[in-house]
Amino acid sequence: MATFKLTIEYDGTGFAGWQRQKDERSIQGELERAVQQFSGEAVQVKGAGRTDAGVHALGQIADITLEREDWRTDKVRDAINHYLKPERISVLKCEAVEDGFSSRFNAVRRHYLYRLADRRPPLTLTRGRAWWWPVRLDMDAMADAAEVLVGRHDFTTFRSTSCQARSPIKDVDRIFLSRVNDEIHIEVSARSFLHNQVRSFVGTLKLVGEGRWSKQDVIDALAAQDRTRCGPLAPSEGLYLVKVDYPSGEDEHR
Amino acid sequence: MATFKLTIEYDGTGFAGWQRQKDERSIQGELERAVQQFSGEAVQVKGAGRTDAGVHALGQIADITLEREDWRTDKVRDAINHYLKPERISVLKCEAVEDGFSSRFNAVRRHYLYRLADRRPPLTLTRGRAWWWPVRLDMDAMADAAEVLVGRHDFTTFRSTSCQARSPIKDVDRIFLSRVNDEIHIEVSARSFLHNQVRSFVGTLKLVGEGRWSKQDVIDALAAQDRTRCGPLAPSEGLYLVKVDYPSGEDEHR
Repeated sequence: MATFKLTIEYDGTGFAGWQRQKDERSIQGELERAVQQFSGEAVQVKGAGRTDAGVHALGQIADITLEREDWRTDKVRDAINHYLKPERISVLKCEAVEDGFSSRFNAVRRHYLYRLADRRPPLTLTRGRAWWWPVRLDMDAMADAAEVLVGRHDFTTFRSTSCQARSPIKDVDRIFLSRVNDEIHIEVSARSFLHNQVRSFVGTLKLVGEGRWSKQDVIDALAAQDRTRCGPLAPSEGLYLVKVDYPSGEDEHR
Repeated sequence: MATFKLTIEYDGTGFAGWQRQKDERSIQGELERAVQQFSGEAVQVKGAGRTDAGVHALGQIADITLEREDWRTDKVRDAINHYLKPERISVLKCEAVEDGFSSRFNAVRRHYLYRLADRRPPLTLTRGRAWWWPVRLDMDAMADAAEVLVGRHDFTTFRSTSCQARSPIKDVDRIFLSRVNDEIHIEVSARSFLHNQVRSFVGTLKLVGEGRWSKQDVIDALAAQDRTRCGPLAPSEGLYLVKVDYPSGEDEHR
């Protein structure tokens, strides 16, 4: 048996999300089909993060374990990509890793990016790639309020009611806002996230950017531990899973 | 009468190009329809650059002259955008300019960007936004060869056989190459361009990046003044009209 770590990029538009679905196209489902087509083996493609419908990835990580052991890593990457055509899913990298490697459980940090285009003219080239909001937002106020969400907290307010995590307590390592031309980029990093956590953060911070909420409102919403106190969920099309970190050395077994 | 200068962004995918066509969707045609729908006036929308089918723009410039004089510029912008929906064309800015202003003839410099994604994995989020070439290119060799194309030259080799410019002699002010993640960005600036000039440059420089051509081959091709000596035309989907410059002060009549 041989285990491979895959780095995957995708355009989430039109997919039901990462997770395999019975009647809908999913990233995992398309990958599993492609792996089977090239290897003849029906295996599970296990991902580090279960991105929602419409969410994109620049560096999703997944692992597969094949019976046959002598595949070359570049052959695995190219063969999966061949059978993925014309889907907008692409294996950027394939690395051999030791047996037992788990993209999901070995991950030590996940990095997300949210793109919020706060400009009046409708989007053209970036449509479906960012949340379009036609009024300029106060990024400094948003960045100031974002500090409230960094650290270890009970994030009940900021998780989907369907979230299956046992605990609502998470450690958010970093939230960083920057302006890139007509967009505000919101980067959020944590070991793991609750369901809809980043989109709940962004929807709430946007209220601050509009001047409708103060930093104190965010403090109160967090303290309330009450989902109904969250801002509206930001749309999926602005969200990107950028990168997943593993303990150093873990991905060097090639 | 009132003349307005419009700054326009578009996704060229699926359009026959800038220029109005009888039976095909064009950027100019859609803009003229939108202007007529909001103003009731049938006017020509005159652009600074006639981008080809599939070419994008981040900052195309065009002008319109309306009989009615008291439109507010933000109203003109928003109204055109309203009637452009759902086309991927967006008026970023509308400025009042003096009568006689010509986007095309007053322009003193045009800036183009070409995005060349030289990576093995197929494109996903940037599909249709860059030229995908599955082998890494030697950007330094390309940048070195690009110097040959800067300055005043007879660019017969690098223009379409259907180019209608009276003279094949042009001044290329600047060609700048840089690597942005998985892409080589090629920026080209000149007062004006011949038809297909940038795509002819890129197709030729790519041969250098592959190691198939040397800098001397580019020198010889230029000197030959012979269209058949040009490298293959780079596809339109990687090309962007980024910006058009006007004499300073010219766009300050608001």
